[in-house]
Amino acid sequence: MDLASFTTSVLTSFVIFVALVLVFTWLSRRPGNAPVYYPKLLLRGLDPWEGRGRGTRSPVGWIRDAISASEPDVVAAGGVDAAVYLVFLSSVLSILVYSGIVLLPVLLPVAATGRALVVIPPNPKNSSQSTQDFSPIERLGVGNVPEGSMRLWAFLLSVYWVSFVTYFVLWKSYKHVSNLRATARSTPDVKPEEFAVLVRDIPRPSPDETIKDFVDSYFRALHPNTFYRSMVVTDHTEADKIYQEIEGHKQKIARAEVVYANSKTESNPEGTKPTHRIGFLGLIGKKVDTIEYCSEQIKELLPKLEAEQKTTLHEKQKRAAIVVFNSRSAAASASQTLHAQVYDKWTVMEAPEPCQILWPNLLRNLYERQIRQSVVYVIVFLIVFFYMVPIAVIAAVTTLENLEKKLPFLKVVVEQPAIKTVLEAYLPQIVLIVFLALLPTLLMLLSKQEGIPSQSHAVRAASGKYFYFIVFNVFLGYTLGSTLFKSLTTILDHPPEIVDMLAKSLPGSATFFLTFVALKFFVGYGLELSRLVPLIIFHLKRKYLCKTEDDVKAAWAPGDLGYNTRVPNDMLIATVVLCYSVIAPLIIPFGVAYFALGWLIAKNQILRVYVRSYESYGRMWPHMHTRIITALMVYQTTMIGFIPLKKFHYAPILVPLLPISIIFAYVCHMRFYPAFAKTPLEVVAQHDLKETPNMEAIYTSYIPLCLKPEKLEDLDAFEDAQSHSTSRAPSV
Amino acid sequence: MDLASFTTSVLTSFVIFVALVLVFTWLSRRPGNAPVYYPKLLLRGLDPWEGRGRGTRSPVGWIRDAISASEPDVVAAGGVDAAVYLVFLSSVLSILVYSGIVLLPVLLPVAATGRALVVIPPNPKNSSQSTQDFSPIERLGVGNVPEGSMRLWAFLLSVYWVSFVTYFVLWKSYKHVSNLRATARSTPDVKPEEFAVLVRDIPRPSPDETIKDFVDSYFRALHPNTFYRSMVVTDHTEADKIYQEIEGHKQKIARAEVVYANSKTESNPEGTKPTHRIGFLGLIGKKVDTIEYCSEQIKELLPKLEAEQKTTLHEKQKRAAIVVFNSRSAAASASQTLHAQVYDKWTVMEAPEPCQILWPNLLRNLYERQIRQSVVYVIVFLIVFFYMVPIAVIAAVTTLENLEKKLPFLKVVVEQPAIKTVLEAYLPQIVLIVFLALLPTLLMLLSKQEGIPSQSHAVRAASGKYFYFIVFNVFLGYTLGSTLFKSLTTILDHPPEIVDMLAKSLPGSATFFLTFVALKFFVGYGLELSRLVPLIIFHLKRKYLCKTEDDVKAAWAPGDLGYNTRVPNDMLIATVVLCYSVIAPLIIPFGVAYFALGWLIAKNQILRVYVRSYESYGRMWPHMHTRIITALMVYQTTMIGFIPLKKFHYAPILVPLLPISIIFAYVCHMRFYPAFAKTPLEVVAQHDLKETPNMEAIYTSYIPLCLKPEKLEDLDAFEDAQSHSTSRAPSV
Repeated sequence: MDLASFTTSVLTSFVIFVALVLVFTWLSRRPGNAPVYYPKLLLRGLDPWEGRGRGTRSPVGWIRDAISASEPDVVAAGGVDAAVYLVFLSSVLSILVYSGIVLLPVLLPVAATGRALVVIPPNPKNSSQSTQDFSPIERLGVGNVPEGSMRLWAFLLSVYWVSFVTYFVLWKSYKHVSNLRATARSTPDVKPEEFAVLVRDIPRPSPDETIKDFVDSYFRALHPNTFYRSMVVTDHTEADKIYQEIEGHKQKIARAEVVYANSKTESNPEGTKPTHRIGFLGLIGKKVDTIEYCSEQIKELLPKLEAEQKTTLHEKQKRAAIVVFNSRSAAASASQTLHAQVYDKWTVMEAPEPCQILWPNLLRNLYERQIRQSVVYVIVFLIVFFYMVPIAVIAAVTTLENLEKKLPFLKVVVEQPAIKTVLEAYLPQIVLIVFLALLPTLLMLLSKQEGIPSQSHAVRAASGKYFYFIVFNVFLGYTLGSTLFKSLTTILDHPPEIVDMLAKSLPGSATFFLTFVALKFFVGYGLELSRLVPLIIFHLKRKYLCKTEDDVKAAWAPGDLGYNTRVPNDMLIATVVLCYSVIAPLIIPFGVAYFALGWLIAKNQILRVYVRSYESYGRMWPHMHTRIITALMVYQTTMIGFIPLKKFHYAPILVPLLPISIIFAYVCHMRFYPAFAKTPLEVVAQHDLKETPNMEAIYTSYIPLCLKPEKLEDLDAFEDAQSHSTSRAPSV
Repeated sequence: MDLASFTTSVLTSFVIFVALVLVFTWLSRRPGNAPVYYPKLLLRGLDPWEGRGRGTRSPVGWIRDAISASEPDVVAAGGVDAAVYLVFLSSVLSILVYSGIVLLPVLLPVAATGRALVVIPPNPKNSSQSTQDFSPIERLGVGNVPEGSMRLWAFLLSVYWVSFVTYFVLWKSYKHVSNLRATARSTPDVKPEEFAVLVRDIPRPSPDETIKDFVDSYFRALHPNTFYRSMVVTDHTEADKIYQEIEGHKQKIARAEVVYANSKTESNPEGTKPTHRIGFLGLIGKKVDTIEYCSEQIKELLPKLEAEQKTTLHEKQKRAAIVVFNSRSAAASASQTLHAQVYDKWTVMEAPEPCQILWPNLLRNLYERQIRQSVVYVIVFLIVFFYMVPIAVIAAVTTLENLEKKLPFLKVVVEQPAIKTVLEAYLPQIVLIVFLALLPTLLMLLSKQEGIPSQSHAVRAASGKYFYFIVFNVFLGYTLGSTLFKSLTTILDHPPEIVDMLAKSLPGSATFFLTFVALKFFVGYGLELSRLVPLIIFHLKRKYLCKTEDDVKAAWAPGDLGYNTRVPNDMLIATVVLCYSVIAPLIIPFGVAYFALGWLIAKNQILRVYVRSYESYGRMWPHMHTRIITALMVYQTTMIGFIPLKKFHYAPILVPLLPISIIFAYVCHMRFYPAFAKTPLEVVAQHDLKETPNMEAIYTSYIPLCLKPEKLEDLDAFEDAQSHSTSRAPSV
């Protein structure tokens, strides 16, 4: 890529970015758009235009606000997970800034004066390589340094500098996150998950005993002083179906009432009662009065729900349970203690937050979980390595001819010559794009199939899978692709040339990645900040679909940060920038810009837009940490392979970096990880003696919505429904 | 090896065995030898000659006794560890018996009628290989089957049979051992280690606080209802030295009194007071009256010991402690729960038995333990792979000339021509033998340097190291050595011949291992049963050294079973027999004899001879289990490599066996191992409510001998000496 096209590309991205920021500044000041740009403030009951501190008057106010918000503010607004995500961005930023401070002033002059790319004699007849046009960007990289030159020492030592900067920053960040987690967990407010453990693989009880009684007697025997109550997990699909039906009818009534009220105009004071058809999708069947019909339906369904609730509670008990203890430390101890002599019975673990439990997964037993996990891993492995195969197959099947045969009504459209040309040219690409767009959802689905009990854990699992996919396919794929496959014939003719070519091509793909990073942050962050897509969807929905207040709220519901795609994408940039930091130091400023802007915009979005859907107290961090180290090791390996290509014989000096990285990762894992996987007693014990929490509320929060008794007094009835006996042990 | 020499070798071994058994039968009936053949019975206060049941009258009585003793008898006599060792022997025996039942009747006829080793035309001039003399033993192995013959199916399927028999037997044994451990741990008798946890990596307390107070306040805060007392580990080397000195003097007085009493003959009614010199080794210096001198010394030392005890308790506290809880389940929970937010502080684990604590290792912190472990692993790796190097160096340095120079007084001896010849010929071998004899001790020392807190754990670690050493050096070393290195030149000239040679040599080394197994069990077990060496040592000691009853007792103290060398040696035989079971099925009866005799003799020795020095409740079993599977996988890999050498194209059918083995090992580990590494609540909780144990006795058992207060009332004083304050929280 020459300088002109590079500049054009970066400039275009920049112009788009500026335009999007201006759009954001203009749109976000219009009150009608508040639900799109300040949904979180609205949900917390704040007026976004109140006071100067909210910074909505000045165009750069949001920047001031984001910078001035402290970490406790972020935790209060978006939870520990959001704060940890910011720590992740700022850690990578620090690594790049510290690296850049040394690398840019040292390596750029060393490379620029190297002249290796200048002295090659232009010999257009003989060799195709020397006719290559070297841009000034490539002259600023290691490619411009002559082979075996002593200048390579600077590049060699830079690898050490980057590595040690990474260790330093990561150690400090891990410590910081660990403290953040400990602080957040040791607040005195009562979180139900701190008092509960999840028990799975409950053995089959004797035939005259319900599972509930079995669990109660087992835990009462082992924890006589601290056991409070247990709730056996049931298969409540049926009850949930009825419950959802009722809720749907309720919603329809609410909408119909609004429509009815609106229809009472002056000309028609009676109004028109809304009607709908009861057949397929409301398109066919008898026409009925919506309000009447739905009320009747609810009246019919309610006793059915109650009957189903009873059956579910008593007959559909499954071999898993949530056991509630009367103190935090008792639950923490119990969740870490082996209960049975064989591990495939009575396995215990910390209970997930009630809101993020994946109920169907609680029913799976140990062996099923293991088998599912293995199968999912194999599938993911195949997707990562052979994802082109199904796409090629689909693309081959979905040729225009086939499409026309299967879906004849498309014929009118695709027979247009212009459309036909475009479709024929782009169909495979469209399939690829659709596949890539659906991939995170697919990976999320696969992760949930593993038998993971909580949403946050599934997000972490999906994030890991996506990380491996994009690092392998984008980073390695492009680098190797651009060097190896492009000129496979040259290599086959002259095998030794592969070495020269790799040395020359690595700096070459640097320019590609530079453009890639610029595009990613200018356009990506511009779109993220301006929220154009949610804005349009919101306005369309409000105009055509929303009837009630609840509908409007649902239309602007911002959702959460979406760690499962966000983190892997950031990690890809971090990997790319790290790997090219020494080969083409010019990439560092771009990386710094990416993570600085990313940090700023993410903080703004956390404070004003996204609403967390769960809290895992930063359990994502160990994964981020490990992956940064993985990226660092990819970088170190690349450099160990790359420097010798320059005929520089001191390259083995880099080899000790790999064991150092492994030892560093091991020590961090040993020291900090246990407190992420388990609950340290120290953290939970301090508030145990001071207060007696509302144990009933804790217990109730674990009852699925569709089984929840209407009044709290029914709680005992709920429990008795699971048990044979009606007597219960005194609580506490 | 031809048939004649094989028969001679096996017959010689057998004759030695019969002789040793006769010697045993004769010697063990002489009352004077009872302390050598029945030390355990004596220690338990039983008369070995009482009743017929003891079976000492009939020459085969011991066999009847050993067979009739039930598992609970073995547990009562030798502990769970001994019972688990017998399960190990009987498991391997079962595997071999089940394998042999099918393999011998099937494979021997198939191999014997193969005639591959007969049809090679004798062509003495052309090739050296065909002149080879094939013994009938080799004709009974797979070597006799022609290449590509369909008969090889029998050998292929035999591998499957042996594998599935192994899985079946191992699964049953693991289940059995797991139950054995659970039963033994859930007995109501009070074991101090069940009430205690070991705490290491205690952070540095504030300067005005002792470690003892720090530990007390920390654990009282986290376990307010279950914490009983804590004992901070001290560096008591100094106190121990003084204590040992006092004990030495006491022993001397006891001996001197016996000598004095004996000297009061009729001719000399006053007797002669024994004297000794107080200089170096009692050879030089002033002559003193032993009884008077030692009493004086004790009088002097006692106040010194008391002062040192006080200083040790208060000033030499180290950052480790034994924390005692008032119930078993509280201790079990605490030992499995993470206490601090960072893992390198307040690490907890189950406390070892008081008698097997390795005090110096308790003081090491987490990072020191990790580093020590890594260093030890590297050293062991070097020993396993390059053990010949230091031996060659030592052998080179300790030539006769060097020895004569360094130790001139040897000159008279080594200048004798006969001795010189022998020494020159055998010096390297002697160095090798000495090294191999010292190896278990060396590995034990290394294992203790890892920072392991208990004797039994160190034994397990040393046993693993020794296993890898002997399997690598004896089994692989001999097999590869006999095939590859022997005719290295042939291979270098004709590389493809290596394949043929391997296929021909594997059956060849089978004969060697057949002899090896026979020698090992006939001579080894003969010596083991007849206990000739301990017998001679005992009689010599009793005659010349022992003065008091205690001396005599010390002379026949039998020690424990020595799992660290015994288990790896058995494992070597198991590996060899498994690996050759299909190649040369004739090895199976020898293996069966080895493990049957081994089981019989080990049971006899456990019931009558060895005294356990610790109890780990069968924690050796998971290691044995893993190693049998390792042996199985070595066998499967060998066969996958060996069958294709016979030009048999169905060999890949064996490949699935490897993943099956891995899955089997993983499932066993997942299901059973946790209860070996941790204490399941189920097992310890059942007796917690029924009785209140003597907590003071539990606490006292952890006080090192040299710091133990003379009377139990001093226990409070002991605890106060560690603490600043004199007030203690009420216990329970």
